[in-house]
Amino acid sequence: MNISVIRYILGWVIKIEAVLFILPCIVAICYGEMEGIAYLATMALCSVTGFIMTLKKPRSFVFYLKEGCVTTALSWISLGLFGCIPFMLTGEIPSFTDALFETISGFTTTGASILSDVESLSYCSLFWRSFTHWIGGMGVLVFLLAVIPLTGGSNINLMRAESPGPSVGKLGPKIRDTARLLYIIYISLTLLQIILLLFGGVTFFDALTTAFGTAGTGGFGIKNSSIAGYSPYVQWVVTVFMILFGVNFNAYYYVLYRKLRNALKMEEVRSYFIIIFVAIAIVFLCIYNNTMGVFSALRHSAFQVASIITTTGFSTVDFNLWPETAKMVLVALMFIGACAGSTGGGIKVMRFVVMFKTVIKELSAYMHPKGVKKLKVDGKPVEHEVLRSINVYMIVFIIIFTISLLLISVEGKSFTTNFTAVAATINNIGPGLDLVGPTGNFGDFSIFSKFVLIFDMLAGRLELLPMLILFYPPVWKETFTARVRSAHKKKQNKSK
Amino acid sequence: MNISVIRYILGWVIKIEAVLFILPCIVAICYGEMEGIAYLATMALCSVTGFIMTLKKPRSFVFYLKEGCVTTALSWISLGLFGCIPFMLTGEIPSFTDALFETISGFTTTGASILSDVESLSYCSLFWRSFTHWIGGMGVLVFLLAVIPLTGGSNINLMRAESPGPSVGKLGPKIRDTARLLYIIYISLTLLQIILLLFGGVTFFDALTTAFGTAGTGGFGIKNSSIAGYSPYVQWVVTVFMILFGVNFNAYYYVLYRKLRNALKMEEVRSYFIIIFVAIAIVFLCIYNNTMGVFSALRHSAFQVASIITTTGFSTVDFNLWPETAKMVLVALMFIGACAGSTGGGIKVMRFVVMFKTVIKELSAYMHPKGVKKLKVDGKPVEHEVLRSINVYMIVFIIIFTISLLLISVEGKSFTTNFTAVAATINNIGPGLDLVGPTGNFGDFSIFSKFVLIFDMLAGRLELLPMLILFYPPVWKETFTARVRSAHKKKQNKSK
Repeated sequence: MNISVIRYILGWVIKIEAVLFILPCIVAICYGEMEGIAYLATMALCSVTGFIMTLKKPRSFVFYLKEGCVTTALSWISLGLFGCIPFMLTGEIPSFTDALFETISGFTTTGASILSDVESLSYCSLFWRSFTHWIGGMGVLVFLLAVIPLTGGSNINLMRAESPGPSVGKLGPKIRDTARLLYIIYISLTLLQIILLLFGGVTFFDALTTAFGTAGTGGFGIKNSSIAGYSPYVQWVVTVFMILFGVNFNAYYYVLYRKLRNALKMEEVRSYFIIIFVAIAIVFLCIYNNTMGVFSALRHSAFQVASIITTTGFSTVDFNLWPETAKMVLVALMFIGACAGSTGGGIKVMRFVVMFKTVIKELSAYMHPKGVKKLKVDGKPVEHEVLRSINVYMIVFIIIFTISLLLISVEGKSFTTNFTAVAATINNIGPGLDLVGPTGNFGDFSIFSKFVLIFDMLAGRLELLPMLILFYPPVWKETFTARVRSAHKKKQNKSK
Repeated sequence: MNISVIRYILGWVIKIEAVLFILPCIVAICYGEMEGIAYLATMALCSVTGFIMTLKKPRSFVFYLKEGCVTTALSWISLGLFGCIPFMLTGEIPSFTDALFETISGFTTTGASILSDVESLSYCSLFWRSFTHWIGGMGVLVFLLAVIPLTGGSNINLMRAESPGPSVGKLGPKIRDTARLLYIIYISLTLLQIILLLFGGVTFFDALTTAFGTAGTGGFGIKNSSIAGYSPYVQWVVTVFMILFGVNFNAYYYVLYRKLRNALKMEEVRSYFIIIFVAIAIVFLCIYNNTMGVFSALRHSAFQVASIITTTGFSTVDFNLWPETAKMVLVALMFIGACAGSTGGGIKVMRFVVMFKTVIKELSAYMHPKGVKKLKVDGKPVEHEVLRSINVYMIVFIIIFTISLLLISVEGKSFTTNFTAVAATINNIGPGLDLVGPTGNFGDFSIFSKFVLIFDMLAGRLELLPMLILFYPPVWKETFTARVRSAHKKKQNKSK
């Protein structure tokens, strides 16, 4: 394994994080908060660490999928480790586990919180918490690829490991162009939402943090009541933008380049909207009653469906109290998730489209054993490689899910709590049901369970395999043996 | 579709059921029960129906996978429809839905009951209830293949649709030999268990019904306390035989033909025993405490693990009251299920072996992208066809599971009840947790939910696709169009 290039890229990631810390510092200055010093100190620490790690350029930039996975996994872990320092320094989240949980939850755009009272946080910490969502939404490595020339390497391997979905569509001729274009779309949509929120009369700080939470499909709110306290207009804006950020960004690319027809033809995006529509209808029928008006019921169902399918996790109401069917629809949406190539999590609509077509193909093969056609999506045949990767993804998903459920069940919490806690973290949603419902939080879990859930959040965000590779012993064993061997050779050469 | 051959085979299935009704009639005579008349009447009805349906031999015995699936699904439904009549006639289960639920639960070897007091049933009904497990365990079509010469047809398609597991291993040169051999092993093992139970001092009736429940991995007990009232010796005998009936019958074939080495090499069987061992160890650690002795804790953990992994569903203790981890282990075992080619249900160990190897292969492909070897089980490469069928199976499983969960959640029961009710029926286990735990029953569900669960039981027993094909409109549409076309042609020919 090319350890030096991994070190080099990690160094850059930490350097970027140092730069990102400027923003909470500015917020601290604006609000005259002493907590800013914690962010300044962490920024200094990141700068020095990043500087040292990038001092020596790697000899070779050759880079395979294995290195891509390990780099991605380690980058995200480092982001979390450095990102949680300010929370501890300010004393707002004194425990390391809790601070790490909150930060990883932020970067992975999960939005699961261990805090019972977010309103007690300082403005700069609230900002940083929401800002991690925005960074994590599009991915820090994609950002890295957009700004830093990592020439000579197979950079697609980095992007592949970080981007959500079964396959990476290149938007431009170069990876760098694709990465830039993604960020341009991302920033524009975020700005648009901020402006629309400001029209709704919310403060600039609220608009900023809410937009960050929406854009990254994260879900950290700055109010204890999440979005419930805002006006219906604001709630509708958030609903619409949650849905927009859950759309495959390729659709926006097509719209941008006036290939609207291509965008409308995307089967994944169409299925995504159909699922949203059906889910809203079912939830509406479940929760509509005489005490709640039609519009209010419609708003709550649309908001909650959008929030869960895009894996954002905002709430306007305690859906833990809803009828069982409405809750089950939300649990099903948790697993479906948003489109591939969006900022959302979950298993992704694309995988379900392919899986659904696989079943239909199988059924028609039973009817006409000789006339079986190739599986197509968007008119193009789906490569065998993609089918296999979806297959492996589903198996790994089930394995990680089951083991996590077993591990956190040791605490003796209810099945509903455990099941939805794992579902809400591995799918990067945030709230689940029962104890981890919209009004609850993850603070009650033991340190051990929190680390299990941290792993799940990272695994979910990075599409499972990178985290699995990181903990796959042969990868490290091989690297270690190779190092020992080369050291041995050098020694021999010297003695000659 | 070859409708006439389907009709013909269905007729035979019903005729066989008529013969099977002799046994409860004998039981009724032995115990001097008037309920026997109900069984006699149903026997007469079955004989007449079966006779009429097999009057005309089909013109052609040509038989494809599609016909195999439809025949299998319809056979099992007919078994249930005729089998539930005595329960209604005797008035022991007056409601049609309940009687059908109970019978299908019997034939599919699920063992989920709607009765709160089984001890109030007559002996002949108790016998019939347990006997359905024994019939369903090995499969009535396999029996048909063993006794009736269906010459000229691709009989493997029938067997394939009914046998549990991703692929059917032929044991003899002819399907008929395989079917016979399977039944010989099945009967021998059952007899052995009956003898061992009699040594334990239980009555002949108890030994018979308990052995039927064990052999078919069914789980209907004749006592309200299931197996809890029997001596530890009897419980251990049942434990061992549950595990034995969960083993792939190919292993017994190898043992029979003195190829012991082949039997020991079977990776599925080895994994099955490893899983059982690990599960018992975990459950033992969870439930062992000072109030329960070591041996007692060991007996209960072994019994319950064996009962759940083989999808039998007997109980010696109310595991619904066990610690959460022990319950989660049992829930995980529910899905794993027994070996392919056994009488057990669930997803089957074989599928998990292949899926686990797929992941390992993927991980090593990340390390050595060029040196990927073919996936092998038992030293033989796994065919692409089998991999695809496992893939499709898992997708269909998830789809049916989710839809069932949504449908029965309409009633508003708890998530744990709903989730484990679906898990316990689709995996053909019987008891779940919460309301459907070992001391509860399925009687509380609405008629609609019961039909959903009946579908799940059948789908689970027939490995999903046959039931799906039965409800796949194009299958029927095509048959209908073909009929109309041929009728039209005949008319034209006549008018000429």
